[in-house]
Amino acid sequence: MGLNEVLSEIDNGLEDAMTRLFDLLKIRSISTDPAYKAETRDAAEWMVKELQSLGFEAELRPTPGHPMVVAHHRGEGPRLLFYGHYDVQPVDPLELWTTPPFEPQIEDTPKGRVIRGRGASDDKGQLMTFIEACRAYKAVNGTLPGNLTIFLEGEEESGSPSLIPFMKENAEELTCDLALICDTSMVAPGVPSIAGSLRGMLKDEFTLHGPRIDLHSGHYGGPALNPLREISKLVASLHDDQGRVAVEGFYEGVHEVPQEQIEAWKTCGFDEEEYLSSVGMSEPHGEAGYSALVQQWARPTLEINGLWGGYQGAGSKTVIPAEAHCKITCRLVGDMDPAHVRKVLRKHIEDRLPTDARITWDNDLDGAPAAVMNTDRPEFEAARLALSDEWDREAVITGMGGSIPIAYYFKSILGMDAMLIGFANDDDAIHSPNEKYDVKSFHKGIRSWARILDRIAK
Amino acid sequence: MGLNEVLSEIDNGLEDAMTRLFDLLKIRSISTDPAYKAETRDAAEWMVKELQSLGFEAELRPTPGHPMVVAHHRGEGPRLLFYGHYDVQPVDPLELWTTPPFEPQIEDTPKGRVIRGRGASDDKGQLMTFIEACRAYKAVNGTLPGNLTIFLEGEEESGSPSLIPFMKENAEELTCDLALICDTSMVAPGVPSIAGSLRGMLKDEFTLHGPRIDLHSGHYGGPALNPLREISKLVASLHDDQGRVAVEGFYEGVHEVPQEQIEAWKTCGFDEEEYLSSVGMSEPHGEAGYSALVQQWARPTLEINGLWGGYQGAGSKTVIPAEAHCKITCRLVGDMDPAHVRKVLRKHIEDRLPTDARITWDNDLDGAPAAVMNTDRPEFEAARLALSDEWDREAVITGMGGSIPIAYYFKSILGMDAMLIGFANDDDAIHSPNEKYDVKSFHKGIRSWARILDRIAK
Repeated sequence: MGLNEVLSEIDNGLEDAMTRLFDLLKIRSISTDPAYKAETRDAAEWMVKELQSLGFEAELRPTPGHPMVVAHHRGEGPRLLFYGHYDVQPVDPLELWTTPPFEPQIEDTPKGRVIRGRGASDDKGQLMTFIEACRAYKAVNGTLPGNLTIFLEGEEESGSPSLIPFMKENAEELTCDLALICDTSMVAPGVPSIAGSLRGMLKDEFTLHGPRIDLHSGHYGGPALNPLREISKLVASLHDDQGRVAVEGFYEGVHEVPQEQIEAWKTCGFDEEEYLSSVGMSEPHGEAGYSALVQQWARPTLEINGLWGGYQGAGSKTVIPAEAHCKITCRLVGDMDPAHVRKVLRKHIEDRLPTDARITWDNDLDGAPAAVMNTDRPEFEAARLALSDEWDREAVITGMGGSIPIAYYFKSILGMDAMLIGFANDDDAIHSPNEKYDVKSFHKGIRSWARILDRIAK
Repeated sequence: MGLNEVLSEIDNGLEDAMTRLFDLLKIRSISTDPAYKAETRDAAEWMVKELQSLGFEAELRPTPGHPMVVAHHRGEGPRLLFYGHYDVQPVDPLELWTTPPFEPQIEDTPKGRVIRGRGASDDKGQLMTFIEACRAYKAVNGTLPGNLTIFLEGEEESGSPSLIPFMKENAEELTCDLALICDTSMVAPGVPSIAGSLRGMLKDEFTLHGPRIDLHSGHYGGPALNPLREISKLVASLHDDQGRVAVEGFYEGVHEVPQEQIEAWKTCGFDEEEYLSSVGMSEPHGEAGYSALVQQWARPTLEINGLWGGYQGAGSKTVIPAEAHCKITCRLVGDMDPAHVRKVLRKHIEDRLPTDARITWDNDLDGAPAAVMNTDRPEFEAARLALSDEWDREAVITGMGGSIPIAYYFKSILGMDAMLIGFANDDDAIHSPNEKYDVKSFHKGIRSWARILDRIAK
């Protein structure tokens, strides 16, 4: 029995597959918020049961944080590890959701049917494409495909604090010939994409302290240092008027993108105008002189993800607050070193502190360098052909603006290459209100994995 | 019977007076937060009962917002109106309070005994000094002093939206020879102070809108406009590097302080070093070239009271938010026109908007010009002598950094001068966590009013 039967099985079982996905989407596994610790574990247990029902030797593996899910199936062929994460992003601002984030539903939209809900795309919907491919294969062939290890974490959206120690402690068990990861998007709707590189990430956060206590702006407005004004000056100083990061030493390790690469990307199906206009932008706002695609795939960024201080409630409050807060993430490319970026960023801020202000840093935030894939491996060619068959369109090797530290760790800790193939779209609103996953992505994603496993096995 | 008996009555009744104040402080009358609407009304009703028990014709007077309290006692002599407010500021950040804000208590501190709790100073403690003076007078003389009207509002901390219409509708009833207001502080501990001028206030608030939705900083970090970076640039543009407001036209109507006034203030007991160091400042941070006292009393300000956007929760979130928010208040002096200041402020912001950003303004926020008192009236001299007797120290005519729009409205709407005398201290932490009122301020404040009423009656 062969591929065609598996693909038919997938088509016939699509509704059941979506029902299973909905069960998973209903679990509020927000890993970054301690309030959801128990439900995050529930999601892990749901995955274990699911994998056991498919014949995997699956178990929950404790960590100091959220548990890992590890499952094995010993079979023929190259040893493959599939990685995904069962945790999701927070849902605020909740009031902007048109449907409850954890009550998934199918919606008909002008662009087709979508699965709406937190995690529908990132990463529950994507990881289930691989699991459902395995289910269909087994239904047809009576056994799971090849020699598989499934490795799911529950801390991807909160910096993966337990990941490195766990991989080191279980290196032998987790080291396979190749890692498969389904947590990325397609360069354009309908254009199958394999990630050639991923940006790294550096997270930092600081509090600027001014007056000893909150002050009345009538008694102290004028004479007192206002932390909200000072933090604004500091944030404004981080970029120049060309959108370039103004932190001295920030660009160390950044390599200009080769012209032939830029040329190749021009035919990859990326629609800059659609990419920008879909979110209300009329022009790229990053470093002047680079296209939106290059800004996203191949240039580093320093972004403010949270900024706050003072009164945020209803009405007005004449307060000069004692402190102000700022959350920062940098996207890293090439050979940028997260530790170096953190050092120069902190120096930039501290060198600009006014009298009577002081800074405290959050030292619990991590970082990871960029990752460049080994696209010369035969599995990449096999995947490229499999994807081209499924999508009737040449698959492309793309850059990726996101950061998936796991790809870097697989290489640095286990010496294992990774191949990232995902079916998300840029308008999935992952990390935003009203996250969705196209039913087409889910359906053809499952079919794509069936084809990829089939080709790699050959 | 005379003043000395009244003063003894005040001394003997102090503990009971504090018990009554505590009952009032326990009522969470936060007027700016709709969640406390009912309790704000409770405070008004408490005041009505209190005033009726003293023999006033007192009643609750409805408004579209929180009710007014109006009470009359027809007697001999000049007709005096006493104004205060029974509402209080919000209590956030709650975690910085060392005692529950609405569970008042007496604390022994190195600087003496204090009454700790929200509203202890602003304005419940202060307004009760006048009420308790009336109570002692009646206990000794069997009747209330002179010809009194008590007028208390419950919206002072939320912009007094109902005040002007109410005063216009009840102009005849409220127009007296002079208004007495107890909502100000002493220039230095133990230095009795009469306000010669008050700064005005202009409130505004805007939201900066960027991307259509919250974005993932991996997919859009770089190409997307980040509202947190843009709002920081806008806020940073509001002042120059000399601490001067950089908004064109802002200083229209500002008059330089006469040198002789500056000289006079030098002997008023204001301790700049203590004023700054008590809140952790080593130097004045307002306009260069002006002392902290002049910056506070006689110069305008543009302060940020709230600034926020993006993720503020635990951990990290790689989001580029769709919007960012900013709350602003300006303190006005001289002949500055709030409407003009709002116009030039908004123009400054809108002139600096980048492509793909738009601004929405909160149009429900009010403003009032500065107020200059008619200190030539005989009541000011009477009060100066009465205060000097009580505090064994020459009373001083000061400036005031705060804004009490009522003083301006009494003059513009009722043609009535106001005399502001308060017993708060700059370290009372009004509008901040751990607000307090010195027991000495409460006790000698009551005695001061008894002396002032006695002298004005003569």
